[in-house]
Amino acid sequence: MHLEIDIKQLLESNKLDELRIKLPTIPVPDLAEQVDSLEPEERKVFFDLMPLDIAKQVFEYLPPPMQKITIQQLEHQEAAQILNEMAPDDRTAFLEELPGPALKKLIQLLSEDERKVTLALLGYPAQSVGRLMTPDYITVRPWFTIADAFKKIRDNGPNSETLDAVYVTDDTGVLLDDLRISQLLLAEPDKKISDLMDNVYLSLKVDQDQEEAVKKFSKYHRLALPVTDKSNVLLGIVTVDDMLHISKEEDTEDMHKIGGVEAFDEPYLQMPIYRMISKRAVWLVILFFSELLTATAMGFFEDEIAKAVVLALFVPLIISSGGNSGSQATTLIIRAMALGEVRLRDWWRVMSREIQSGLMLGLLLGSIGFLRIYAWTLFSDIYGPHWFLLAVTVGCSLVGVVMWGSLTGSMLPFILRRCGLDPATSSAPFVATLVDVTGLIIYFSVGYFFLTGTLL
Amino acid sequence: MHLEIDIKQLLESNKLDELRIKLPTIPVPDLAEQVDSLEPEERKVFFDLMPLDIAKQVFEYLPPPMQKITIQQLEHQEAAQILNEMAPDDRTAFLEELPGPALKKLIQLLSEDERKVTLALLGYPAQSVGRLMTPDYITVRPWFTIADAFKKIRDNGPNSETLDAVYVTDDTGVLLDDLRISQLLLAEPDKKISDLMDNVYLSLKVDQDQEEAVKKFSKYHRLALPVTDKSNVLLGIVTVDDMLHISKEEDTEDMHKIGGVEAFDEPYLQMPIYRMISKRAVWLVILFFSELLTATAMGFFEDEIAKAVVLALFVPLIISSGGNSGSQATTLIIRAMALGEVRLRDWWRVMSREIQSGLMLGLLLGSIGFLRIYAWTLFSDIYGPHWFLLAVTVGCSLVGVVMWGSLTGSMLPFILRRCGLDPATSSAPFVATLVDVTGLIIYFSVGYFFLTGTLL
Repeated sequence: MHLEIDIKQLLESNKLDELRIKLPTIPVPDLAEQVDSLEPEERKVFFDLMPLDIAKQVFEYLPPPMQKITIQQLEHQEAAQILNEMAPDDRTAFLEELPGPALKKLIQLLSEDERKVTLALLGYPAQSVGRLMTPDYITVRPWFTIADAFKKIRDNGPNSETLDAVYVTDDTGVLLDDLRISQLLLAEPDKKISDLMDNVYLSLKVDQDQEEAVKKFSKYHRLALPVTDKSNVLLGIVTVDDMLHISKEEDTEDMHKIGGVEAFDEPYLQMPIYRMISKRAVWLVILFFSELLTATAMGFFEDEIAKAVVLALFVPLIISSGGNSGSQATTLIIRAMALGEVRLRDWWRVMSREIQSGLMLGLLLGSIGFLRIYAWTLFSDIYGPHWFLLAVTVGCSLVGVVMWGSLTGSMLPFILRRCGLDPATSSAPFVATLVDVTGLIIYFSVGYFFLTGTLL
Repeated sequence: MHLEIDIKQLLESNKLDELRIKLPTIPVPDLAEQVDSLEPEERKVFFDLMPLDIAKQVFEYLPPPMQKITIQQLEHQEAAQILNEMAPDDRTAFLEELPGPALKKLIQLLSEDERKVTLALLGYPAQSVGRLMTPDYITVRPWFTIADAFKKIRDNGPNSETLDAVYVTDDTGVLLDDLRISQLLLAEPDKKISDLMDNVYLSLKVDQDQEEAVKKFSKYHRLALPVTDKSNVLLGIVTVDDMLHISKEEDTEDMHKIGGVEAFDEPYLQMPIYRMISKRAVWLVILFFSELLTATAMGFFEDEIAKAVVLALFVPLIISSGGNSGSQATTLIIRAMALGEVRLRDWWRVMSREIQSGLMLGLLLGSIGFLRIYAWTLFSDIYGPHWFLLAVTVGCSLVGVVMWGSLTGSMLPFILRRCGLDPATSSAPFVATLVDVTGLIIYFSVGYFFLTGTLL
């Protein structure tokens, strides 16, 4: 069963023994969740009271900002113990968030062995598979018997992150095969490892991008994958539970970009407000400068607007319809690219689909726009004697603008990707802004065509 | 090593024996990937040639539309064999995509046992944990010895989805505990299961939402979780590899909504074009109708525009700045809510942050707008003698509109959620449209205030 505990209340009422007894029965993430609500002094008492192996697990589950605060509040020796005990991949994740001087100070607290492991992991590029590795796994040799393998598992088991697979290497550490634990369990104890081997395995490269790792896990449904260097030497393993986090982070980044913000690397409520404002300001200012072109474009048509003020009334309707259809198209394509459903070479198929969709959607909105002007004219003369030509202008402009929006929105991610940029940079607001300027030109040109000699 | 194979080429050159020999050395997902490129006749030959256990795995990995096509092309008997052999959770996923009559026909192909399992799984609500369950796992009793447990694992192992954990139940099937395989491996063979039990375990409820399951897996870093009914009877297990897919699907849905499209349930290029257009049309038409209000709002200010055409020139700039800041705010909040970083009760903190950010961003854009008009006036007289008042009007309107956009964009997801709706419905285009109408009113009201007696 899943027990409940209120750490703060137990600490406040000084029931330390009760807390100590209950501790091992509570899942670690639930303990970690409550650290946030403790006062600094309580937090210190709580970490002193936990056995080391629980304390390091709780620490692993804290969000990075809380880790930073907590480690500073602990005694020098306790901090060192926790850091030394942490799983290497979690330790790397914690340390890579720290500023240089703090990082240096903490690395000095590590034992020589752990320092070596940590510096090696931190040596791989950010966002690479290397940063996610743990060196805690089981390797066996081809000439081992199954019984030897189980002995090795028993000796090393508790340090291994997952027992789903064991890895076969040669004497120089080169990866030869992976075996599932079920294969070992089902085999006779005196059989050789080499009898089970098929030399077919999947692996990741240490300098591969983490996104590619997510795709590989997702495609092959594996719980863990081995990581090798260029000469195929086994360096560590990566487990699927880390993929869930990376996948969420990636999607958050894409979503923020689609919404027109620099991707956030901290939770919304935890980010200092000045940093949040500056992240938002970057794109908002870029978009604003592009949008200033609308004022210039409108300036060119000032005489037309002066002659036919009624034309100005539909400007927001026209440009926002273009923007909305562009947002739709760009969001669909960015996501389809991220999921691998659409590749660069599909641009032609996408273009033909978008021209068709844009035309249909444009005809739909154009007809509604036409009918709206027609309907209003039945009850008022706000649109004057040339209402019919105005309705035709608005309707035709909508067809053009919606088609243009769909086309721009869908092709921009391809162009960005072709140039080696992230397609998600083609945010909905960015496409909307692009289409605003061109939409005005389409609208006033159509107006010029239909209305010259009457309104203009 | 990872071998390569070109199935189509081997089939075309009729090298069936070579294909048959290579088959077992190629990872199943790679085989599945190539089925798409085969002709219907080749596909049939390929499925005939594969041993049944590989054929069913390849079938499990096919995308649902390809599964539908393939199953129709197979002989009645072969289809039945493949369906009977499939993992129950994958079979459920396949069958739930089918229209009623096809579903009925295929269920008749199942053996009585498999039919029972399948109908039970299909009986759980769509999007519930029940649909993801597999009944293939290992259970043991508290009075088993470790040796008994390993015997059971050996007898059932190949049918079990993961061996990461075994589950302890009582005689009525009630879940008592979960044990990791490493605990069993490290224990003496004559010890009892009950000696290892701590009665602390995590589980999912069968009618729980799949999104909650993703959160639980992500929080507790588990590779598999048991699923129970209300009386805590063990019904099946769910594995983490399914979570990666569900998490991606959820994020895709949210992203599509943020971009202003009804969520797609098929890949972009596979969706029939008329369905894609109708999914996009829904929101586009809703937005268009709301946007028609801008024409009405502009109508109210027609006299002002006629008197001061220069005012109209800045309409697109003003409304799109509001829309962009609103898109940013709504995207940030929707994502933070989906990640659990922001809860309903945080609305007050979010509001205060957004008022501050909106004010700062508004002042920034307002100043740029002001300077733009000032700079142009140095070189031309396009903005007339009252350029200073116009610049003040544009600057102040931008402050108001950007603040209003940030506030609307951030609060709308809270309101939707409070009403029990999906916060992601507050799409970027939806917020932009809302802010367009109100932005016009802000702009012309500010203009009325500053310009009455001069331009107006």
